[in-house]
Parts: sequence; structure tokens; C-alpha cells
Amino acid sequence: MSSDPAVGWLLHPQLAQDTVRVGDLALCRVLLINDANYPWLLLVPRRPDIGEIMELTAADQSQLMGEIMQVSRVLKAITVCDKLNIAALGNVVPQLHVHVIARSKGDAAWPKPVWGAVPPRAYDQTTQRQLIGLLREQLPLIAAD
Amino acid sequence: MSSDPAVGWLLHPQLAQDTVRVGDLALCRVLLINDANYPWLLLVPRRPDIGEIMELTAADQSQLMGEIMQVSRVLKAITVCDKLNIAALGNVVPQLHVHVIARSKGDAAWPKPVWGAVPPRAYDQTTQRQLIGLLREQLPLIAAD
Repeated sequence: MSSDPAVGWLLHPQLAQDTVRVGDLALCRVLLINDANYPWLLLVPRRPDIGEIMELTAADQSQLMGEIMQVSRVLKAITVCDKLNIAALGNVVPQLHVHVIARSKGDAAWPKPVWGAVPPRAYDQTTQRQLIGLLREQLPLIAAD
Repeated sequence: MSSDPAVGWLLHPQLAQDTVRVGDLALCRVLLINDANYPWLLLVPRRPDIGEIMELTAADQSQLMGEIMQVSRVLKAITVCDKLNIAALGNVVPQLHVHVIARSKGDAAWPKPVWGAVPPRAYDQTTQRQLIGLLREQLPLIAAD
């Protein structure tokens, strides 16, 4: 038995496939979606068997809001975007994951939501490495790899 | 001068046009979108000149998360839906508003996000009145009209 609430948590394989790992905040794993159309992050609470925010404990809900705000501020500062889009949908991948997306007027889907709007466009390695470097510098990560 | 943080707040006319008012929680106005395809609520913090969650005070951010959870639980209990979709987008209407949508397998857009998926379908008056009645019964509203 363990009191670590992260025990039993594994990242859903579909989320692993679509993303690169930025690192871990106290509650959430932070992932960068491999789509250069928009700087697009996912926050995944490291808690097993959670599909809805309301299934988290009240303390974790509060921590999640705090981490969404931390990621929002850093993403806004790095990208100088026009709008943040924040969403927990999960109709396809049942593991709770929160999208935080930097939207700019004139981006590939603007002003529509990003889901299904245009095919993803893979990052070139340099751009992706730079973005991840900036995120790792500015987020209070407890682990990055 | 007033210390009431709601002073100067007015509901954006586009949000008013698309919705029926359910009532007010401590922070947010709760609105029902007039689209019978999905039970679809909006939470609008009664704070002027706010476009992003991160522009709210920390206390209001915490209150917002609490109200999203209250609305989530009530909407799930009333609709017995398969999934909640929660989102703050705001690419078109700049006033901060949070969508809380009850999604069911086989609904008009499933499993896609609802925005732009199918044309809205107006409620018949009886169904709308019943849904609003249930919401008003179960939400801790401070005002309803």
C-alpha cells in the first residue's frame, strides 16, 4: 500500500503518441502537442482513473486551477498570443486532460476552435526544442525529461 | 465609488441573445444556451473587463472552479450524460464565459466538440422550462429570474 495518490497512474497511450513531454508540475504532467499550427499544451493530472475534473479531490481541483493559471501565464508570455483557449473535453480519450492553447488572430483555425479544424503540422526540431526550452525555464517543474 | 466588484459588469449582448438566464451563483451568471441538441450552460463571472481566467483575482479563480464543479454535478445528475465538456474559448465573444456541456454518446455532434458542428435547434417551451426548473431547484442560486 502507498499513500502516493499518483500510484497506478499511467499516461494514456494516445496522449503519449500525440505529444512531447515538457515535465511535471506538482499535480499535472505537462505535454506539448506536436502541432506547429498553435502552441498547444496538455495538463494531465497524475491521478489514476479520473475522467472528469469533478472526480478529483477538492484539493486537487484547486491545484489544477493553479497549474492551469501558471501554464496560461507562461504560454501567454512566451507566445504573445491574442487569446488562450482552455478546455477539458475528453470525448475520445477518457483520461482527464486539460488543453491550454495559445491562439492568434490569423492562425490556421482562427476564430474556430482547433479540434478537427486543420490537419496537424509537425514541428521542425529546432522550433520544438526552443519552445520546450522556454517552457522548462519558466514553469515551476518538479521534474523534466 | 463602490467596493462591489460586479459594478460596471454587463452581460455581453451576444451571450444575452443566445441564451436564457437561469440565475446567479455568488460569482457567475448561469445561462442556458438555446440549443436543444445538448444541455449547454454558460458561466459568466460578473466582473467587468475580464477576458481570460488568469485576469480574475486568485479568490475569484478559486470561486470559479467551485462554481464550475457545482454546475457540473447538477448537470450530470439531471442529464445522466456520458461526458462533461468544459471550456473557456472566447475567440469570438471577448467577455469571459465558461461552457459546461452535457454530452451523450450519439448526440448530434458526438464525439466532436459542439462548436460549429451542427446548426442549433431551439427548445420547445415545455422542455426548456422543465430543464430550467430543475437547474434552479438544484443550484445554490443567490438570484433567479
